[in-house]
Amino acid sequence: MRVKTEDGVKDLQALWLEDDGRVVMMEQRIIPERLEFMDCRTVEETAVAIEDMVVRGAPAIGAAGALGMAQAHILGEDWASSKARLWKTRPTAYDLFYALEYMDRAKEAGADLVKAARDFTDDIARRCKAIGEAGAPLIKDGFGVLTHCNAGALATVDWGTALAPMRIAHRDGTKFTVYSDETRPRLQGSRLTAWELENEDIPHYIIADNAAGHYMQRGHIQLAITGSDRVTANGDAANKIGTYEKAVLAKENGIPFYIAAPVSTFDLGMSDGMQIPIEERDCSEVTQFEGRYMAHSKSPCKNPGFDVTPARYIAGYITEIGIITADEIPDRIGAMQQDHGKE
Amino acid sequence: MRVKTEDGVKDLQALWLEDDGRVVMMEQRIIPERLEFMDCRTVEETAVAIEDMVVRGAPAIGAAGALGMAQAHILGEDWASSKARLWKTRPTAYDLFYALEYMDRAKEAGADLVKAARDFTDDIARRCKAIGEAGAPLIKDGFGVLTHCNAGALATVDWGTALAPMRIAHRDGTKFTVYSDETRPRLQGSRLTAWELENEDIPHYIIADNAAGHYMQRGHIQLAITGSDRVTANGDAANKIGTYEKAVLAKENGIPFYIAAPVSTFDLGMSDGMQIPIEERDCSEVTQFEGRYMAHSKSPCKNPGFDVTPARYIAGYITEIGIITADEIPDRIGAMQQDHGKE
Repeated sequence: MRVKTEDGVKDLQALWLEDDGRVVMMEQRIIPERLEFMDCRTVEETAVAIEDMVVRGAPAIGAAGALGMAQAHILGEDWASSKARLWKTRPTAYDLFYALEYMDRAKEAGADLVKAARDFTDDIARRCKAIGEAGAPLIKDGFGVLTHCNAGALATVDWGTALAPMRIAHRDGTKFTVYSDETRPRLQGSRLTAWELENEDIPHYIIADNAAGHYMQRGHIQLAITGSDRVTANGDAANKIGTYEKAVLAKENGIPFYIAAPVSTFDLGMSDGMQIPIEERDCSEVTQFEGRYMAHSKSPCKNPGFDVTPARYIAGYITEIGIITADEIPDRIGAMQQDHGKE
Repeated sequence: MRVKTEDGVKDLQALWLEDDGRVVMMEQRIIPERLEFMDCRTVEETAVAIEDMVVRGAPAIGAAGALGMAQAHILGEDWASSKARLWKTRPTAYDLFYALEYMDRAKEAGADLVKAARDFTDDIARRCKAIGEAGAPLIKDGFGVLTHCNAGALATVDWGTALAPMRIAHRDGTKFTVYSDETRPRLQGSRLTAWELENEDIPHYIIADNAAGHYMQRGHIQLAITGSDRVTANGDAANKIGTYEKAVLAKENGIPFYIAAPVSTFDLGMSDGMQIPIEERDCSEVTQFEGRYMAHSKSPCKNPGFDVTPARYIAGYITEIGIITADEIPDRIGAMQQDHGKE
């Protein structure tokens, strides 16, 4: 991703491995206030950085796991205990466990472990770039493009999922404007997505989540693209809370709504999205900012982290194998997943 | 409205006139953090309190204007200059100018000016209570009721518009739960509406605006009621940004969506809502909280204050003359407005 630093504009990934065994991560907890990098000098430091959300986003967490195992190899740390330590950092992201098992297999096969971890990381970025190339033609000159939350390079090593088509279209010279929902309660849109877009010099506006419908109604938005945490076999998509609202409003206003996600996000073992458990998160995310109450402190609150958008609201799925429809998921995604094992 | 104070539970209006000429207002800028009352001891102090938004909401601002003129009478301040001072406090609320002209007419007619101002204020509250009585039967045991922004007693002297049916239904013993959208960017839902509901002991949850669709989809919400800033002759309703989104989602999920508003909110001189100008407000409301950036500070932002909900999404209008449909607006509202002059 393109990042404006004090030393000029650089092309960076969200995290990488140095030859001396350091895992270097963009400090995502303080973006957008400032850009800093954290040097993780031991596997323990890498594990703590994952736990403390210096790095976030399932693909990026997976990369951190793979790079952490290569770090263990370079530094001569114990392989099994390094794996166990990284395994217990975050409970949910399947990508983490997949990455750790991948590195185990690489070790058993006698592979170059540094190269294996870097290949794993680059492969995530490559798939995201392919998503960008598949989706970029959807964006036309003059379009307003809505996105929700941060499905960007920070979460996916590089390029992003929903932001990848915007990066490619912008580099291709297409003139468009992104409307970035602030994405309450955690503000990933107004903080991380806005930061990524500003660094790429892609024209954009931050808007309150409440304003997306208004701009659709008034003809300012022609396309909507978000990421997804899980797409089920029938095409239902779980994603950050509020995604369902924007998809319904897009349909009501005749605006195509796309999900951008790699093949690994599709869960063909689940028939529909109503089976996806919805995480209920701490209310302080809604009621407080930096420890100060924003809301009436005596009122109870509910804070679901995700919602499910039924497939009928989704025009298509932008993947690294092209744009597919819900009907095509079982065959085309199924074939890819059988080729590559469960990704 | 029912308010829990250090001296026990009291039944209060948002503002009132004391016999000694003080205009007393609930300090709405610090609710919900704490409850304080501001004593306005001169017309100048009353005017500054209106300007500084100690009192907010068009009907409550109108009441402040009427009470300020009675204050001028009690204190022996110059009538014409008091009116001129109050007139220039806020530019938008029609209710203010109407109240000041009303007091001028009362003076010309030789009326008791203190009684006239108190009658004016009580009349606002009475109309709101009638809205509550008309709307309460819509709320059934077990319902989840969504509201957006604060159309409560704080904005309308007492009872509120959207909150009035909830107050009446609760006092009648109906068991229901309110879902109060936090209402970004200014958080009137999580601050003021939540405060009013907690003081009434009406069961409620604060939710992020993004979560309303999810709770509709999952069957937790059976009814939606909001206020309105202006309803046009065809039934289109302007209200706080995000109202349109919730109305579309309600329709999509088969949930009736009502506007609660007094007859004076209907503007029969405007044929449809697309003619209503939408105020673009300062971006700091979206990007900052208490002076601290919540968002990427280098990104531009858009912050429309209101949106327009087309009449086709609105099941009915809860008014002090009963619940009416869009088709009935010209005849029934028109007859009332002719009876009472332009209210």
